[in-house]
Amino acid sequence: MEEKAALLDIQFATHELENSSSPYNRSMRLAVLTVSDRCSQGLAADASGPAIVAFLRRTWPDAEIQAALVSDEIVEISDHLMKWSGQGLDLVLTTGGTGLGPRDWTPEATRRVIDREAPGIAEAMRAQGAESNPMAWLSRGVAGLIGKTLIINLPGSPRGAEESFAVILPLIRHGLETIAGAETHP
Amino acid sequence: MEEKAALLDIQFATHELENSSSPYNRSMRLAVLTVSDRCSQGLAADASGPAIVAFLRRTWPDAEIQAALVSDEIVEISDHLMKWSGQGLDLVLTTGGTGLGPRDWTPEATRRVIDREAPGIAEAMRAQGAESNPMAWLSRGVAGLIGKTLIINLPGSPRGAEESFAVILPLIRHGLETIAGAETHP
Amino acid sequence: MEEKAALLDIQFATHELENSSSPYNRSMRLAVLTVSDRCSQGLAADASGPAIVAFLRRTWPDAEIQAALVSDEIVEISDHLMKWSGQGLDLVLTTGGTGLGPRDWTPEATRRVIDREAPGIAEAMRAQGAESNPMAWLSRGVAGLIGKTLIINLPGSPRGAEESFAVILPLIRHGLETIAGAETHP
Repeated sequence: MEEKAALLDIQFATHELENSSSPYNRSMRLAVLTVSDRCSQGLAADASGPAIVAFLRRTWPDAEIQAALVSDEIVEISDHLMKWSGQGLDLVLTTGGTGLGPRDWTPEATRRVIDREAPGIAEAMRAQGAESNPMAWLSRGVAGLIGKTLIINLPGSPRGAEESFAVILPLIRHGLETIAGAETHP
Repeated sequence: MEEKAALLDIQFATHELENSSSPYNRSMRLAVLTVSDRCSQGLAADASGPAIVAFLRRTWPDAEIQAALVSDEIVEISDHLMKWSGQGLDLVLTTGGTGLGPRDWTPEATRRVIDREAPGIAEAMRAQGAESNPMAWLSRGVAGLIGKTLIINLPGSPRGAEESFAVILPLIRHGLETIAGAETHP
Repeated sequence: MEEKAALLDIQFATHELENSSSPYNRSMRLAVLTVSDRCSQGLAADASGPAIVAFLRRTWPDAEIQAALVSDEIVEISDHLMKWSGQGLDLVLTTGGTGLGPRDWTPEATRRVIDREAPGIAEAMRAQGAESNPMAWLSRGVAGLIGKTLIINLPGSPRGAEESFAVILPLIRHGLETIAGAETHP
């Protein structure tokens, strides 16, 4: 996991040196939303959010990164996604609320606000995640776009979130380039 | 298939002996819905429904199991799902109506009544089923929750239904524990 | 790729000789819709549409095949799909507009008009396509039915479209038989 992340960082750094035409003429702008009743009530520490922020920091050292923590309420989740999309953020990752528990409604909150779904990103997380952990199939996470902001639901555990993100990082890189319009196709 | 089912039964029995903290303080409550015009009109015998009931019986010997048979009508299907969810059942399996034939509307009936989809369960059935039968990709089955009742569309053939169920049985066990709230996560 | 296509053609030809009970008592009727602003404005030549038409011609030599070219506008896309379904076509393939670019809306146009989704066909394209090209997970294509017309969104590049179609060709053959009612099941 750490090795894989480190390897991906090296690949990215090399890519950047070789290819100065970044999709953005500005820093990337990212956000992480932790969705958890227990954390938002102070009953547990948020481990997943900081873990993802750290991963993003290693991956894109120059990015602006925001983070927030909300309870498992559809309106709170969807409001944050809409607000960040309205601010023009490039990528928003959520963690938590993707399971089958009675308070897991993050996918529904996400689907409510995205205007285009990218089902393959969630399929890739599940199918590739299931190779090491078969229970990855139970994650109900969705991925999609609000305008030019890519939203992706990651699992709630720090390890699950980090592993899922590592798996789809190459997709995200390429996806962000396409969203930014760096790549045209007939 | 039989061997695999037997193996899973053994694993489950062992697990039960080792771990007395079942997610439920009561018997599990299950139902099987056969969806078939021909069977409901008496033109063919229902082989799939009884096969799944037998499988459930081997898997959870103490469960209460209901079964019903309806024609390929959206309203009949969705009414049964709503009724069983209203009675607090834990798991409802349907068989039939997931193909591309003109009368196959079980996924649409299911999607109409679930309040949360669990797309990975259906993806797992197709992706893992396709390893032995590539046509498994054609099944349009969906999975999701009405309240705390997990609904899963299985294929219509006895063999397809039984194989699909065996493939996702470990997911279902874990999923039912999560739905019952036996597992908390931050 | 070429070899695989050729092999599939041979298999089909053999199948036809052995089994005269084709699902149709008439020629198959197919259409290809290229979705591209640049091609529809004459700024680029349409390579994907003709490539898919040629592939269809090799696969079903006796089929009637229509083709059209539209810009990336939801209404133009969905109008063509509705028109062709109204004419009773068996299969409509689209190419283009399935990515994350700001003008990629083909899946949304498709979802707007299909009455039944066949998610496994799109999952198979992505999962099997990803074995040779991991970026296949980013395709947002959907598949489904308008009445008895099967609609499938293929990627926009000629190679991506042709490879995706080759991967799902066995599914399509079997699916078309089921749609035509050639196969009954209890």
